[in-house]
Amino acid sequence: MNIPINEMKEVLNKLFLKYNFSKDKAKFIAKVYAENTLDGVNSHGINRVPLFIEYVKKGVVNVDAEAEKAASFGLIERWDGHLGPGIINATKCTNRAIELAKINGMGMVALRNTNHWMRGGTYGWQAADAGCISILFTNTQPNMPAWGGKHSRIGNNPFIVSIPRKEGHVVLDMAISQFAFGKINDYKLHKKKLPFPGGWNEDDELSNDPEQITKTERGLPIGYWKGSALSMVLDMLVTLLSAGDSTFKIGQKPTESGISQVYICIDPDVFGDGNLREKLLDEIIDYTHDVEPMHPGEHTYYPGERTLQTRAKNLKEGIPVSEEIWGKVLDLLEIK
Amino acid sequence: MNIPINEMKEVLNKLFLKYNFSKDKAKFIAKVYAENTLDGVNSHGINRVPLFIEYVKKGVVNVDAEAEKAASFGLIERWDGHLGPGIINATKCTNRAIELAKINGMGMVALRNTNHWMRGGTYGWQAADAGCISILFTNTQPNMPAWGGKHSRIGNNPFIVSIPRKEGHVVLDMAISQFAFGKINDYKLHKKKLPFPGGWNEDDELSNDPEQITKTERGLPIGYWKGSALSMVLDMLVTLLSAGDSTFKIGQKPTESGISQVYICIDPDVFGDGNLREKLLDEIIDYTHDVEPMHPGEHTYYPGERTLQTRAKNLKEGIPVSEEIWGKVLDLLEIK
Repeated sequence: MNIPINEMKEVLNKLFLKYNFSKDKAKFIAKVYAENTLDGVNSHGINRVPLFIEYVKKGVVNVDAEAEKAASFGLIERWDGHLGPGIINATKCTNRAIELAKINGMGMVALRNTNHWMRGGTYGWQAADAGCISILFTNTQPNMPAWGGKHSRIGNNPFIVSIPRKEGHVVLDMAISQFAFGKINDYKLHKKKLPFPGGWNEDDELSNDPEQITKTERGLPIGYWKGSALSMVLDMLVTLLSAGDSTFKIGQKPTESGISQVYICIDPDVFGDGNLREKLLDEIIDYTHDVEPMHPGEHTYYPGERTLQTRAKNLKEGIPVSEEIWGKVLDLLEIK
Repeated sequence: MNIPINEMKEVLNKLFLKYNFSKDKAKFIAKVYAENTLDGVNSHGINRVPLFIEYVKKGVVNVDAEAEKAASFGLIERWDGHLGPGIINATKCTNRAIELAKINGMGMVALRNTNHWMRGGTYGWQAADAGCISILFTNTQPNMPAWGGKHSRIGNNPFIVSIPRKEGHVVLDMAISQFAFGKINDYKLHKKKLPFPGGWNEDDELSNDPEQITKTERGLPIGYWKGSALSMVLDMLVTLLSAGDSTFKIGQKPTESGISQVYICIDPDVFGDGNLREKLLDEIIDYTHDVEPMHPGEHTYYPGERTLQTRAKNLKEGIPVSEEIWGKVLDLLEIK
């Protein structure tokens, strides 16, 4: 079924009001969940709302809490999320990193004790809309084995880079796992194999069988040993810069909570050559874009390009949503 | 054959003096090439010296040139490498980013018109030795297809993250290609298959046959479409921040030259909690380190750990070097 963006925003707004979010916060969180879904990221949009409400009910997400500055050194700040909603905390810290960048050319906020920010790309788009380059990353609960080890001990630690551009921002939003577990579940649901190995089976072999991977919950890092190492250093950076919890500590909790994140923003306008920048970006995009495909029918895209296409389509036609999920959301609201 | 580090330094010093490097620069470049080899990175150590000398002879590398500041905005600086030796330029820009970080907490140098820095990790170790976190990246000539495209149009753009640590720095030194072309050539030489697909064959299929991959020179990005996107944004960042040449422009030159790089340093001591930092790092390392192996005999390592092991071994036993390569170097010096 397809839901118009405004209907989704209204329903979610009511839902969050019911669960005791303030008027402003309910409206804002509803907007972000709806826009994540509008952009095609249902897994961190509407599909995730029931789990978010469960976390609110359990007190994992502290409805009233909000990130506060804990320490600062010029353009580097440390914030404490007080286990508030990840979306509110992430938006606030991105805004602060943008402010620091507008003043100093560059700024960094390290955030501890926060909750899942849903789609990391959201904050990349936010920074780019404000004219800033952003480099953002987070840790997560353990969900992949470190290379050579048997059990999941590193996180898929999403890594975001965004670059403002007049004809459409460039936004890379990439978890360090080869496939998101949400995606692996989709393949399982449709009884399809993954196109490439995505994790380990019970015999400790790499597998493209979603059934087997979800059984062991051992995802595969991108680039095997390389992604494993990248995941580790991202966890180290967010942990030591925020003085927060690492993937190790998060894994000891009953649910994923109290995670650590870093927000770096750079103002590319400090040298006053915005026109040159647009030209250089367009050259890179043109060179990689309209090229002979590897196989008939394939296309190359720049990071963020397909998001804009999906956004435009869903604005026009409504957002494709699973009937079951939408039913769950309405049930939570008790208006079905 | 095994060459003691000091002998390698002396020979290389003489060689660079012969090719008109100043006394200081010859000594310094010799030290870096020897230490890269000491750390086991022969491909960007001794093995690369003959090609470097060829570039010097051709005037691709400008022996006397050195990076100079071209523009600055507080803690962000733009430098021009004037096509000088990549090692000299990279060392200078890393030092400058460290200085900016020591003053401001964080600093960034964007460098254009430079040459190959050899082992990117060298500058990660340099920053960590100075007590700084570093995030460093470079573009390269095109050597991988962008995902979906047929021809090589993105670079393997090495990405370095280093974190200072008392018991051994953490240093990630990772090209965005699944395998370095040097490594693929090693497999070819030994008539072995790669353990995982590493590029495309002439039939546009992913292949682990080094023979076929070197024929097409189309490497595979880590994580398929993910590494392809990461390579693109790294190229965009180095290009627009330095106002330098992109992979597109580098690919139009007869040899790889005039590349662009970014050096970000962060002083983790700004919050004065070095002891906590060591503890948090050790927790992450312990959690991922001495774990049940995926397969018998496998081990997990933190990024940089094996470099330290190799360094210690080669200091003691001499540096393993291909006789053919060492012969070539001595031939260049005409002392054989």
